[in-house]
Amino acid sequence: MTDFNLECPVTGYANTDVITLSHGSGGESTQRLIMNMFAKAFPNLQTDTDGAGILCGRTMAFTTDSFVVDPIFFPGGDIGSLSVHGTVNDLAMMGAKPLYLSVAFILEEGFLLKDLQTIVTSMSAAVKEAGVSIVTGDTKVVEKGHGHGIYINTSGIGMVLAPVAPNPDRIHVGDKVIISGDVARHGMAIMSARNGIEIDPPIFSDSASINRSVMSLYDAGIHPYCMRDVTRGGVSAALNEIARARSTPIHIRISEESVPVEDNVRGLAELLGVDPLHIASEGRFILFAEPTLAKKAVNTLRKFPGGEKAAIIGEVVAEHTSGLVTAKSLLGSEKIIYMPAGEILPRIC
Amino acid sequence: MTDFNLECPVTGYANTDVITLSHGSGGESTQRLIMNMFAKAFPNLQTDTDGAGILCGRTMAFTTDSFVVDPIFFPGGDIGSLSVHGTVNDLAMMGAKPLYLSVAFILEEGFLLKDLQTIVTSMSAAVKEAGVSIVTGDTKVVEKGHGHGIYINTSGIGMVLAPVAPNPDRIHVGDKVIISGDVARHGMAIMSARNGIEIDPPIFSDSASINRSVMSLYDAGIHPYCMRDVTRGGVSAALNEIARARSTPIHIRISEESVPVEDNVRGLAELLGVDPLHIASEGRFILFAEPTLAKKAVNTLRKFPGGEKAAIIGEVVAEHTSGLVTAKSLLGSEKIIYMPAGEILPRIC
Repeated sequence: MTDFNLECPVTGYANTDVITLSHGSGGESTQRLIMNMFAKAFPNLQTDTDGAGILCGRTMAFTTDSFVVDPIFFPGGDIGSLSVHGTVNDLAMMGAKPLYLSVAFILEEGFLLKDLQTIVTSMSAAVKEAGVSIVTGDTKVVEKGHGHGIYINTSGIGMVLAPVAPNPDRIHVGDKVIISGDVARHGMAIMSARNGIEIDPPIFSDSASINRSVMSLYDAGIHPYCMRDVTRGGVSAALNEIARARSTPIHIRISEESVPVEDNVRGLAELLGVDPLHIASEGRFILFAEPTLAKKAVNTLRKFPGGEKAAIIGEVVAEHTSGLVTAKSLLGSEKIIYMPAGEILPRIC
Repeated sequence: MTDFNLECPVTGYANTDVITLSHGSGGESTQRLIMNMFAKAFPNLQTDTDGAGILCGRTMAFTTDSFVVDPIFFPGGDIGSLSVHGTVNDLAMMGAKPLYLSVAFILEEGFLLKDLQTIVTSMSAAVKEAGVSIVTGDTKVVEKGHGHGIYINTSGIGMVLAPVAPNPDRIHVGDKVIISGDVARHGMAIMSARNGIEIDPPIFSDSASINRSVMSLYDAGIHPYCMRDVTRGGVSAALNEIARARSTPIHIRISEESVPVEDNVRGLAELLGVDPLHIASEGRFILFAEPTLAKKAVNTLRKFPGGEKAAIIGEVVAEHTSGLVTAKSLLGSEKIIYMPAGEILPRIC
């Protein structure tokens, strides 16, 4: 973090320090902003997960997410379904059964009601599919030029089912790293739509609620030690966050070849010069499970739509204990998988 | 609702139907949008309060609000403290003790970190004062020109303390209508700041958390039958919403002269040609209590900062049962207090 002061100093901002797109990337700059500003101001902020465990009789999970995706309609989904999937998935990743959602709209003056109806209908279908209820909401409108059609915030509450919540600290050396399906589709679907690039066959976002997959793991007796949905920053960000979030950092080694990526997705990524490992999915997650259960977990995940290519992609090794993620090639060379820095694809969710 | 089809038809929007500023006003258009679009799509949406009662072991309250106030800094507060007060107050109005808050930022590229720090510090002070915790958050950044510096969503969870939750259906004929302090300060403070109008003495927003006032009522043995914070649309909107929200609508009659408004606030309202009854407060609420407890309620409220002018402003009468709010003057004439229509002051919260 040598460039620390360039982007988000601990205190004392100059009149020239500004928010950059990087601060919304989910990568390094976002982390710095969270740790140096928000975590200091909000001492109860739970920074290690995408939600918070709260107590109200029993342990509940609480999470929030704003959605600013551009374009709002994309192949395979829209900002409405995405805003339900994102919050449902954050709850599922905490080992919770998602129950209640709130929805808050920031609409831009001039936004088509027809489009809003389509989005709301799409949210309605998504909550039904996920088995959750939208119970409260809010609507604000800003003047033309002060928004971008529609921004949506969803917050969610779930009941924690896991006897011990999934947590990076529960990972052991030897645990297998599993991905719940092929990755990077969402990011590449957005980029193809945004730039009008026609791919054959077209790329559809993987945006989906993953709570049913997660629950089926529990039903099969598999209690993942740790789970993380693969969103902004892709597999790289998810693994780096986990490797570092532990009180004693770990070394995660993956095999890049074993990470499932569809040919059309890989093709567009190459065309745009981006690494599929850095690209967001919105219906996929990584889990850590003990080796004896790994195959069973993969088979369970493969039964769900989008999970056909679920696979073991790596394991936790004992070599480096500095919060490192590496990829070993078939030929034996090993490279570091860095936390994505800066903004790769702005407004992907 | 004769102009129904002009603004928000039940179905089948034309390509020319658009979102207008009215849809964010909290008035008629907002109500239509909620009832005709959102309530249909989200059958579990609880439209009668600003939050939702949820069950998780015991009854909890859940609410959400986005804040788009312009300007973000105003006399007496900023978007940060306002975003805490607003959600804390929504929970308090449900008879709940506010406990946990989430915060989600939508930041515009180029926004000053210094300003963000000021806002976050202000939120930090507000949560401390209200006795709540911010436990989870999210940050998104949009490109310059697609936001307005900063928008904040806060969602909140509280524990319902009232044995029977306050609810319009619990109001009886003869109940007194009480206001917790002088009104319309927030709206007029925003307008003075936005338009650079200098008032002597200056108008400061009343933005504040009201949960401690509410709890002190309960502690004093006063369980308000119904409560409503006076935000967008002012006293007029709050009373009209309550009069109509009942399964059997009621007639609320107030005395306009008894509604406390500071001289400088009234002066600016006259200058701008707006009715103080339509103007937002952000730290005031209306409650309905039985006549024998009304005076005690007023005395309890007067002990809190901003509550010095708490007063009985009206009562529930038996004359009209069509969800009517009227004001009777000292001379005996009576006028209807309508639900504000259209956008009076955009982006007041």
